[in-house]
Amino acid sequence: MSADVPPPRPLAPEHDEDPRVVAWEQRTEWPLIAAAGLFLAAYAIPIVWPGVPAAVHELCSIVVFGAWFVFVVDYVGRLLLARRRWRFVRRNLLDLAIVAVPVLRPLRLLLLVKAIKRLNRAGASAMRGRVVLYAAAGSALLVLAGSLAVTEAERGAEGSTIQNVGDGFWWALVTMATVGYGDTYPVTVTGRFVAVGMMLGGIAVLGVVTATLSSWLVQNVEADTEERRTEPRDAADDLWARRGDVESLVTEVRALREEVSRLRADGAGVGTRSG
Amino acid sequence: MSADVPPPRPLAPEHDEDPRVVAWEQRTEWPLIAAAGLFLAAYAIPIVWPGVPAAVHELCSIVVFGAWFVFVVDYVGRLLLARRRWRFVRRNLLDLAIVAVPVLRPLRLLLLVKAIKRLNRAGASAMRGRVVLYAAAGSALLVLAGSLAVTEAERGAEGSTIQNVGDGFWWALVTMATVGYGDTYPVTVTGRFVAVGMMLGGIAVLGVVTATLSSWLVQNVEADTEERRTEPRDAADDLWARRGDVESLVTEVRALREEVSRLRADGAGVGTRSG
Amino acid sequence: MSADVPPPRPLAPEHDEDPRVVAWEQRTEWPLIAAAGLFLAAYAIPIVWPGVPAAVHELCSIVVFGAWFVFVVDYVGRLLLARRRWRFVRRNLLDLAIVAVPVLRPLRLLLLVKAIKRLNRAGASAMRGRVVLYAAAGSALLVLAGSLAVTEAERGAEGSTIQNVGDGFWWALVTMATVGYGDTYPVTVTGRFVAVGMMLGGIAVLGVVTATLSSWLVQNVEADTEERRTEPRDAADDLWARRGDVESLVTEVRALREEVSRLRADGAGVGTRSG
Amino acid sequence: MSADVPPPRPLAPEHDEDPRVVAWEQRTEWPLIAAAGLFLAAYAIPIVWPGVPAAVHELCSIVVFGAWFVFVVDYVGRLLLARRRWRFVRRNLLDLAIVAVPVLRPLRLLLLVKAIKRLNRAGASAMRGRVVLYAAAGSALLVLAGSLAVTEAERGAEGSTIQNVGDGFWWALVTMATVGYGDTYPVTVTGRFVAVGMMLGGIAVLGVVTATLSSWLVQNVEADTEERRTEPRDAADDLWARRGDVESLVTEVRALREEVSRLRADGAGVGTRSG
Repeated sequence: MSADVPPPRPLAPEHDEDPRVVAWEQRTEWPLIAAAGLFLAAYAIPIVWPGVPAAVHELCSIVVFGAWFVFVVDYVGRLLLARRRWRFVRRNLLDLAIVAVPVLRPLRLLLLVKAIKRLNRAGASAMRGRVVLYAAAGSALLVLAGSLAVTEAERGAEGSTIQNVGDGFWWALVTMATVGYGDTYPVTVTGRFVAVGMMLGGIAVLGVVTATLSSWLVQNVEADTEERRTEPRDAADDLWARRGDVESLVTEVRALREEVSRLRADGAGVGTRSG
Repeated sequence: MSADVPPPRPLAPEHDEDPRVVAWEQRTEWPLIAAAGLFLAAYAIPIVWPGVPAAVHELCSIVVFGAWFVFVVDYVGRLLLARRRWRFVRRNLLDLAIVAVPVLRPLRLLLLVKAIKRLNRAGASAMRGRVVLYAAAGSALLVLAGSLAVTEAERGAEGSTIQNVGDGFWWALVTMATVGYGDTYPVTVTGRFVAVGMMLGGIAVLGVVTATLSSWLVQNVEADTEERRTEPRDAADDLWARRGDVESLVTEVRALREEVSRLRADGAGVGTRSG
Repeated sequence: MSADVPPPRPLAPEHDEDPRVVAWEQRTEWPLIAAAGLFLAAYAIPIVWPGVPAAVHELCSIVVFGAWFVFVVDYVGRLLLARRRWRFVRRNLLDLAIVAVPVLRPLRLLLLVKAIKRLNRAGASAMRGRVVLYAAAGSALLVLAGSLAVTEAERGAEGSTIQNVGDGFWWALVTMATVGYGDTYPVTVTGRFVAVGMMLGGIAVLGVVTATLSSWLVQNVEADTEERRTEPRDAADDLWARRGDVESLVTEVRALREEVSRLRADGAGVGTRSG
Repeated sequence: MSADVPPPRPLAPEHDEDPRVVAWEQRTEWPLIAAAGLFLAAYAIPIVWPGVPAAVHELCSIVVFGAWFVFVVDYVGRLLLARRRWRFVRRNLLDLAIVAVPVLRPLRLLLLVKAIKRLNRAGASAMRGRVVLYAAAGSALLVLAGSLAVTEAERGAEGSTIQNVGDGFWWALVTMATVGYGDTYPVTVTGRFVAVGMMLGGIAVLGVVTATLSSWLVQNVEADTEERRTEPRDAADDLWARRGDVESLVTEVRALREEVSRLRADGAGVGTRSG
């Protein structure tokens, strides 16, 4: 009810507050976003366009490697700067996984959410607006990353139902909405790992949509209800009225004291005079 | 707690508050609803009844074109009246898409939600009731629009599982409930775009149902809990009791002052008498 | 915050408050539950056991007809007793549909929820507990009714995947959980209507589960947070402390007045003595 | 608003508060967790590795039996120690089912959640954090138990789509996320029972995710809103300011009383002097 509510715990673990790490992160933010963008292009081209000339394919591989190298440098840099390294590793497991596990490469695209965060900083936004914005951006990137990854994994596999990026994109959407028609589904182990990521993402999106609507509705209905309540306002009025009472009381007592003072002066005069 | 809660942000961006645009919108509301209704009929007839005579088909095409023309006129009119045109375009992207992108034509049916809004204005409704009403009406129209659009897109396509409006309707319901049996699913690109719309609608419906129940339950349980609490009432009683205290105190001090006044008068008399 | 929160609107439209209708409903409650129970048995037997002897089948048909007759009598009775008949019809559309539309017959089983309501009246229950209880009972009855209805509709249909009650039960569960594997799905129009009912039920169940958890969590976290807040307590302490202040002030002023009174008496004595 | 909010009801029925049962439970907690862990290993080995040597298979059977025996002893022990035995049976139906119904054996793995509870006791955790932790641990164990159980039930069944643990694991994830592609689904009665458990788990997980996000968002938005409100702070300031007023008033009255006392002494002197 007052402004002293303890700040609510963030859902995600807070970043290492080590000032050197923070400084490093601020300086490397844009280079990392650029690396993620280049990675997206170089990763997508051979998947979207399977008959790409060998030279382009080669170039894409180099760019993908370069982007990976940038991420490794960033991770190692932050690790070296962190004062409590073990704590840093524990708190940045996702970052470690992204650089160390090849199958999780597409998750690097999630770094692009940071670009949206940056662009949003200009416009003022309420809590709920930001949650919706990041959820929408995150799920769009997840669909993009998932459709590329599943196409790479499934294309050419025996019994596969996902043969091109169009199928992969359709599958990613159907999975994330938890509809799951079953016309397309992964059959390889890699594809199934991608699917688990999409399902988790889908559950999260459903949760965010519902939670946002719910919070909006709870607040609106409360505001609606409170307009009809009069007690709290009365109590406040009462306080104000009583403040006036006490002030008039102080004035009254002050006047009384002056009266008594004058009486004492007179009494002294009486004694003097009568003496 | 008080009535000074800032009005919660609307979920949808507010309409352009330009008074000329508002006046235009009020005047064009019913014509647009009528155009949407005619569009529904003319759009549905050739889809529901594939062997429709050429003349009827021709007439339907004309009505569909006419309804589209009405929407274009309305959009251009509002655009010309708006003071800040670029802002108008940004805030009415859905309207632009509906008139400009042929595949989004069925979304024109969503204009019929406005008719429900109009009809509801008569009956007083609580916040939660209105949310439920618009969600139900919107999802019914979305199912209708989606089943027509998917049937138009899929009928005759190779490997299609949706050959008539009955299949389309069944598919729309199965998709919106995120059940997705997989007996019917779109295979064309247009059909898949329709599917994405239905999935988003389904997630939204699930969110609205849950949020409404949640808000109702949170409020009910709170009311339930508060009946058992006595503190706030005690505090109020306390304030009242203390108001009485202060009042009696003021009376007491006032009586005291009169006493002292009389005493001073007496003292003066004493001095006079003794003089 | 105070006990003056307006009573929250019930989710279902309130029953006709006509005292004669209420009296009728109280008297017919148990007969209707019994009729619903008999209906369940007579409806289920030929579906579960397709090769039932002709005599048993005949008997079941009679019981089903008798139960229907009881529902018709109840509906007509309430309609005749209601003062505002048109309003009664509008508010009891589900009851009308259950007696008038043959395909909705299985919904009569929902009357058994009333039996649970009755049995629960004995044990005291919190709001949330009752919501969970009715949701669980309602969805169990919906699964039961849906699996019987879909089996009746689908058995023997061309291309049907539901040939016995076991399949029907499995299908009902898979549908209600919105999983929808697609190994079983209705192909008849009746079966698809049943499916829509199950999907709506599934969405409602998901909503109730989430809303209940949400309300529980919101309240628990609030209670948790409030324990750590000290302001309200301090404010209350403050009020108490100040109550003490004011009391001591009153005592002080009263003592002062007595002092002045005695002074005046002395002063009068002084005047007398000196005179 | 105050700390006197009644403690919210736990979601699960509280354990028998019988002190002897509690003591027994504390002493048997680690042995039971160990038994559950051994059971997991012995249950999983023949399912994951079908061509296991006969000796290992034999050993696994013995360990499974031993673990079951430990659970029976624990259940009987608690039952004998409980003062109100019938109430104990009613409140521990899940425990009874786990020891009595062979098909529910995999649920014994849920006992491993207790191990997580134990390990978590060290680290302080907020309400929401604990709910998320137990939900995540519980659903991971449910997926594990479900994939083992469904593989055991389905392997070799006619028309089965789940032939090894990999398929079972994939099926469990697809089911729990309520996606249900339909590439894998149970065909045996046992497998379908397992599926129902997974679906219920999936609905619960979705509920927990949404509820947690919702509660977090409601609290954050409230805190956000309250910062912009000034009334409560003003009221508190007002109280403080008025506390000062009353204190100064008391000082004033005390000073006045002393003045009058001195006046009275003077008056007495006056009388004496004038006498």
